[in-house]
Formats: sequence, structure tokens, C-alpha cells
Amino acid sequence: MADITRRNFVKLGALSAGMVALGENTLSASALEQKGVKYDQEYDVVVIGSGFAGLAATITAAEKGLKVCVIEKMGRFGGNSIINGGLFAVVNSPKQKAEGVQDSIELYLKDMLKAGLNMNHTDNLKVIAARSADALKLTEKCGAKYYEKLSHLGGHSIPRTYLTSTASGAGIVQPMLSYAEKLSNVILKNRTKFDDFIADDSGRIVGVVIREDYKFDMKALDDNAENKTGDIKYIKARKGVILASGGFCRDTFLRSMQDPSIPLECDTTNQPGATGEVIMKALELGAVPVQMSWIQWGPWASPDEKGFGTASNFNINATFRYGITVDTKTGKRFMNELADRRVRSLAMFDVIGKDQNYPINICDQAAVDKIIPDLTAKALASGVVKKFNTLDELAAAYKIPVAELKKTVEAYNGYVTAKKDTEFGKPVQGVEGVQVSKPPFYGTRGVPKLHYTMGGLKINDKAQVICTKTKKPIPGLFAAGGVNGGIHGASRLGSCSIPDCLVFGIVAGENI
Amino acid sequence: MADITRRNFVKLGALSAGMVALGENTLSASALEQKGVKYDQEYDVVVIGSGFAGLAATITAAEKGLKVCVIEKMGRFGGNSIINGGLFAVVNSPKQKAEGVQDSIELYLKDMLKAGLNMNHTDNLKVIAARSADALKLTEKCGAKYYEKLSHLGGHSIPRTYLTSTASGAGIVQPMLSYAEKLSNVILKNRTKFDDFIADDSGRIVGVVIREDYKFDMKALDDNAENKTGDIKYIKARKGVILASGGFCRDTFLRSMQDPSIPLECDTTNQPGATGEVIMKALELGAVPVQMSWIQWGPWASPDEKGFGTASNFNINATFRYGITVDTKTGKRFMNELADRRVRSLAMFDVIGKDQNYPINICDQAAVDKIIPDLTAKALASGVVKKFNTLDELAAAYKIPVAELKKTVEAYNGYVTAKKDTEFGKPVQGVEGVQVSKPPFYGTRGVPKLHYTMGGLKINDKAQVICTKTKKPIPGLFAAGGVNGGIHGASRLGSCSIPDCLVFGIVAGENI
Repeated sequence: MADITRRNFVKLGALSAGMVALGENTLSASALEQKGVKYDQEYDVVVIGSGFAGLAATITAAEKGLKVCVIEKMGRFGGNSIINGGLFAVVNSPKQKAEGVQDSIELYLKDMLKAGLNMNHTDNLKVIAARSADALKLTEKCGAKYYEKLSHLGGHSIPRTYLTSTASGAGIVQPMLSYAEKLSNVILKNRTKFDDFIADDSGRIVGVVIREDYKFDMKALDDNAENKTGDIKYIKARKGVILASGGFCRDTFLRSMQDPSIPLECDTTNQPGATGEVIMKALELGAVPVQMSWIQWGPWASPDEKGFGTASNFNINATFRYGITVDTKTGKRFMNELADRRVRSLAMFDVIGKDQNYPINICDQAAVDKIIPDLTAKALASGVVKKFNTLDELAAAYKIPVAELKKTVEAYNGYVTAKKDTEFGKPVQGVEGVQVSKPPFYGTRGVPKLHYTMGGLKINDKAQVICTKTKKPIPGLFAAGGVNGGIHGASRLGSCSIPDCLVFGIVAGENI
Repeated sequence: MADITRRNFVKLGALSAGMVALGENTLSASALEQKGVKYDQEYDVVVIGSGFAGLAATITAAEKGLKVCVIEKMGRFGGNSIINGGLFAVVNSPKQKAEGVQDSIELYLKDMLKAGLNMNHTDNLKVIAARSADALKLTEKCGAKYYEKLSHLGGHSIPRTYLTSTASGAGIVQPMLSYAEKLSNVILKNRTKFDDFIADDSGRIVGVVIREDYKFDMKALDDNAENKTGDIKYIKARKGVILASGGFCRDTFLRSMQDPSIPLECDTTNQPGATGEVIMKALELGAVPVQMSWIQWGPWASPDEKGFGTASNFNINATFRYGITVDTKTGKRFMNELADRRVRSLAMFDVIGKDQNYPINICDQAAVDKIIPDLTAKALASGVVKKFNTLDELAAAYKIPVAELKKTVEAYNGYVTAKKDTEFGKPVQGVEGVQVSKPPFYGTRGVPKLHYTMGGLKINDKAQVICTKTKKPIPGLFAAGGVNGGIHGASRLGSCSIPDCLVFGIVAGENI
């Protein structure tokens, strides 16, 4: 195989004539040239990544009769999706109809653009909005179950969000994995890493170089650069390759290049494999890097446990919707608890400051009665959420000036009654009259954790990866989910990753 | 030359052994392989671009004895630099000493980080701060002249800014160009376009493919993709290549990928050649894309002329420093006229809204007496700045409620007297007591125009381009000026591009 070469992109015959057809060159050269490659395995489709996007693409492509190989770098399938909070925004959904919630594609776009500072790629957003209900159906076909009530998440004008019955993305990933495993034309390979693209003469992506038996090194500073394990295989993908490798929150180098203010050792909700090597390899093909410097903190985590933990879903569902967040020093609220993630995280970091003055998220029993009991049980068991008989006890535990806290609670309860928060503009008209008044009370210390990279590759409405030079798709290359950029603009709204991943996974599977 | 190939980066000998040395691969394959290339011309250094950065690199490299070839895509040398406003922030400068202004590297960083939302790459910033006075000296050696007084620009805590005697970047570019032309070891080629990199076996960049006699097509929607003019030449660069090709404000595709809210037809202060093809080609080598979605509007332009025009420097020097900006509908101020560009542009767009309600920048004769007379003469001659005997006349001309305007002026004058703007926090202590009170009065309609792309490539303190995969320099590849990213974070302060370009041009020239 010593005659394998990189694609020789500049046409040298043309060059020697003095005039060059550079405008016709449609791709960069950074893929192995197919000529000379002896394939170890052949499939119709190779999917890189096994989270929501990869599984939706796999099932969709397989069900139209294609032979699909899914590769997953880690030992465990499911990527970040399997540890995700299981919140899934669906536009014009059955539950919205049942609950009498009026939604529309326009309203969804309005909410997304507000959080995204108008930087969102609306061509992609419209596809997600139009097909999120299809994505929901796919998960239900695979066996996913949802909590009966909709959630109302920060930044959404209305309740729009399904929650899996397990209160985790695993509630979608596990059924989809089981479903995919039963399909005879699907091969799932874990511990298998993508290394390179293979292209044919025309520049079409027709395969990948992978390493099987890859052992991800949890202790490496930079696994991607340092890790040399695994056996090289050349894999043909007759119809093309679908990138579903997610974002890069755990890529300390790439994220610090985008935002040097992110501490090297800060906590994140992401799994260790969430690094950027697939994105970067696609950029070498000439793919467009879109909005890679927008990196999101999730405002609902706890400094008293690692990662997403048990506090996040409790705060998302109970305290931020039905309760308040206060500064321990003042006993006062300082933000709209249902603002988008960026706005809340910035406000919280202002309070946390240099002396780690973590704000306290507070709600009452009426709030807890509204949410799935499992969430509360888990959060109490882990010790990050604490229960108090009175506001006095809560204030004492967190050293909050109690008189100020009571004033704050009284004012907030007034806003709930008046259905208008004149102080911070929280949409209290949607909290169903729940105040902070029915004992016991629940408190949890809050901290934002690195959660999501908004940036990545640019795709069109067929999930094809766009090339900067040609403004057209790179033939044979598709992408879905967190690997893409621009869809969420400056800040992704909660529960909008699952529909993004699933819808574009489906679209990629349909179009490949 | 039909045997020229792309560098075959993956070591295939190693591959066939089953274990692969991918971790040792230091570069992507997207450069022509030197083997087989017959060079048409040979130099020590090739510099791509002929603005501040390119010229500083050229003169520095040439003066240490290297043979330098500068290529410039356009017919005219000087890029954006030659139409730049000629404002040059120098830290710890001779004029600061003369005027008794206390500056420091720390204060400069503080100002830059505030405007940059803490996203700035401080490793680069420190180099600029430490060497901006060296850069000033280089320009003076070449014959550049400066207006005698320092300017105090928006976002700077103190006066720090030199203004060329011609009130334009041409006041630096022309002398540097003349100086470079006289050096016997410098070749300047206009109408010459960079197309590709050439690398040797080790991955070092050792040359470029260019097209001579390139005819930039002003009418093309996308000159870079469509234009096939020019004669291909293979150029050896024994010591390496310096990228000084600037930012991409005129690249409608790339900028809309980063921020789709930017209107396709919006006006910009940039020259037509300010497109992103060199940045994108470096990304194909594996260079890091840094903060490419931060694109800046300049708040000081006029809707009544094209481009940077004559109003911009008048507003920068006179109205924003010594005057006020008001909403015609209310007669009221709505921003700190010396806030950074991002803050001011957002505030102005809020006022402009959908009905093109352009705000009015206002100052008086005392302000005009403070600035270089040429600026006022040019701005009056072009008709974009208008002179009025009274505030009543000014209010009538722009349809501002006159009583409100007078109240606004009175309040502002009070802030100047008190040396504290309690309304918008403008640092009026630095306006030398100039109020809006001495007739005649000057008015100009204001609009932000697309001005600067903060993003681009990552360089280290030696101006070497960093590779994502290795975290190390790409051998033989240097970059300076607008082609780089991260230095200015979310928003570049005014007058900080010239020192960035010149300092890293010098550093690249020193280190190549």
C-alpha cells in the first residue's frame, strides 16, 4: 500500500499550460486518495459517533436498506447523549395539544434567535422545528417513554419540553441502541477511532481510516494527540460518511483557543471523549468553521458534585421554574431564573466572584410536587439538594440574611400572584401559581459548568457538510448534532440539543 | 511536473505494520509536496500582503539580509492599511511622556480585556504592548509623521493614540512602501495572488504557488472562487512564508457563516480584496481557527457616503471625544460616546431600528479647534458634516425636538464641569473641559459599518502559526496582523490594529 497518496488536488496538466482551472477545484487535498487503498471492510454508510445524532442517522439509513457501520471511540456507546438530561423540545407536539399550549415554528424561531443573539442559522433551525415531532415519533418507535407533563425551560416562551421517564438521555439512547442492534444491516463498533477521510478522484468522500481496539486514555492530557493504540483499518463507505461526533467541551486546547478565559481545570457536564478532532479534520477538507468561539455554561449545576450530576435536572425542573435564586450575601434575587443559559451564567459568575460565593437555588414543596419524584429523590440522596422545615432553617444553613430572604420571597410570591415579575422579568405567568410558601423548602448551591459548544461545521438542509471554497456540499460527507455549528447561535436554549441531533440524524440518514 | 503530489502525511510504511505513528504526524497534508516542483523563482521569504503587517515584516527581514518577495493580490499596494484612519495606540510613548499621561502595559491589557470581554489572548497582547514603541520608531525611520497631540479614543482609559499627519494609514504605508522599494533585496509584486502552500518532506512550508498578472474582478460575487486569471508560478521561500493578508470583512460568504445577521449588502470600511482565502488555506494545513465569529462594526461612519469616508475620523476625533450623540426622535443621548465599538454599535442599531432613524453626532467649535484642521475641512467638503450657527438650526435640520436637545446639552455640559457623567459613564474627565457650547455647531448622521474581523489564525509570541494537532508551530509559517485571531477578543479597541500589525510584522521578520 506504499503507493497511497493524498489527493493531488491542483490539476498539474492544466497548470503547465500557464492558465489554471483553480476555480474548478472543488475540494482540498486533505484526504487519502482511494487509488491504492485496499479496504479491510466495506459498508454503504459509516457513522462516526453513537449519540442521538449517530443513532438516528443509523436507524434511518438502515431502514432504507443500507448497510451501516457505527464507530464509537469510547468503550461505552452513547457519547454525551447517554448522560444528557433527557429534555427534548418538540414544536407543535401531542403533549402541547393535550395541555392546550399554543406553539408554532415562528415562536420557536423567535425564542431561539433571542437566546442566540440573532446569530442562528435559521435555514437549519426551520428544519429542526418542522421535524422535531418526527424525531419524537422515531424515539417512541424505538421504545422511549416520556414523563406525562411538559416542562417549561428557561428562554422558552411556553412549555415545550418532553422529559424522558428516566430523566436522562439514556431514556432515548438505550432504546435506540437496542433497536439498532437488532437490525441485521447495522454493525456497532466501540473502541474504534476515526483517523482520516478517504476520497476518490472526484473528491467525493468514499471511506475512512479508523483504528479498532482503541483504548482511550483517561489520564492523557490530550488523548487525541498522544494515544497511539489500535489497529488501522481502511473502511469503504459506498454512499458516504456521517459525522455525529459531538462538540468539544472536553478539548482543553481547542476551547481555550476560542475562549482563553475558560479555566483549564473547570468542571464540565461532558464525557471525556468530547473532543474536537473530527471537526478539525473536516476543516482540513475545507469545511467551514462556524461560530466556534461560542461556548456555553450550564447554570444549573452544583459545586458539590462532579459533572451534570443530580442537581442539574432538579434545578432545571423545580427551582428555576418554580423557585428563586438568591445571593447569600444579600438574600436577594439577581436574575430572571428562566432567562437563557448565557444570561443566567454571566449573572451567577458575577455573584460567585473570586470568593466562591455560590448562589442558592430555592423552591418549596409545591414545586417538588410538580416534578418527577425520581429527580428529587436522587438529588436528596446525593446530598446536593437539602430539605428544610422553614425558611429560617434554610437561611441559617446557607448563611443568608434571613430578614432579607423573607422580603425577597414575599416580593417574588407577589409577582406570582400578579402574574408579572416587575423586577427581573421572569415569565411567572407560566408557573401555575406556585409560590415559595409551602414547607418544606429545598435549597441547593449553584454553579455554572461548561456544557455545550455552539460552534462546528456548516450543514445545509440535507445535512450535507458545506465547503468554504465552493459554497457547495463536500460530496459524500454529512453531519448531524453537536459537531455542527451556527444552529444555536450565541447560546443554545435548554432541551434544543436532542431535537437538533435527532432531526439532522434522520435527515442525514434520509439523504445519504 | 506531473509527478507533483500532495504531501502524503500518513506514513504508510508504519501503517502496514498495523500500529500507526499518527501521534507523530505533525501536519495535515494540504500543501503541495516539494518533490517534483520546479521553482520559477527563489527567495528567502515570501510575504503575502502589503499592508502594515506585510511591510513591517518585509523591512525587518530584508534589513537582516534576507531576500524578500511581497505579493499583493490587488493592483494597489497597501491593503486596508492605506485606507485606514491612521490612528495608532502606543503604550508608554514619547508623546504620553510629553503630555504627562501615565500609561502601563497593565492598563493597556485592562482596557483591551474589558472591550474584548476577557476573551483576548493575552500572550499576544503583551508582545504588542511591550513593542508598540519599537513599531512607532520603525515607521518614523521610514518617514512617517504624526499629528502633535495624542487622541483619546473610545474604550481607552487614557489618551494613547497617535494620528498620522495625513489622518490616514497612508501616512504610514506610503513611507514604508517607499522605504521597502529602495531596499535592493526586496521585490514587490502587485496583481499577484497566493493559491497554495508548498511543503517539504518534514512538513515545513518552503514555498507557495502564486498567480502573477492576476486581475481582481470587482464585479464578481466571489472573486476568489470565480477568478481564473493569472499565470501560475512556483516560488521557493527558503526561510518560510509570512501571512499578512488581513481580515475578511468583504468575504460575504465567510462572514455570513459566522454571523448570518450581517446583511449581504451592508456597507463596510474595507477594500474589496479583504477576503478570507488565505485564512481558509491555512486552516487546511491544520492551523487553529480562533474566534472567527466576532466581527466588528465601526460606529463612527456616515450613511451619506461610502466606506470609511470623511466622517469617520471627524467623529472619532471630534464628536465622540468632545461631543454627544443623540436620538433624533427624543433629543436625548443614549450611550457613552467613548464606550468600545461593540457597545456603541449595538446602541446605535437599537436607535436606527427599522425606520433608519440615524442618530446625530454633535460637537461645537471648541471641539473642532482641538483636532487636525484637515479632518474638518474634508468632512465639510464632502457634505457629510454640516455646520450650524445655533443648536436651534441644527435641531431643525435633523428634526430633533429642540427643547429636549437643549436639555440634553445642558445636562452633558454639567457632567463636563463636574468631571463625571452620571448618566452614561463617559470619561468626561478626559475631554479637557470642552462642552457643547461654542458656536458654530457641527452635526453628522451616524451609522455603524462593518469594520474588522477579530478572528483568524493563532500565533505564538514569535508570530509562528500554531497547529491544532501538535499545539506547536507549523514549521516555516508565520502570520501578522488581521489574518490572526484572538488578540482583540470580542471587540477590538480603536487604534489597536496598527500596533498589532506592525509589532507582529516586526516579530515575524525577526524570527523567520
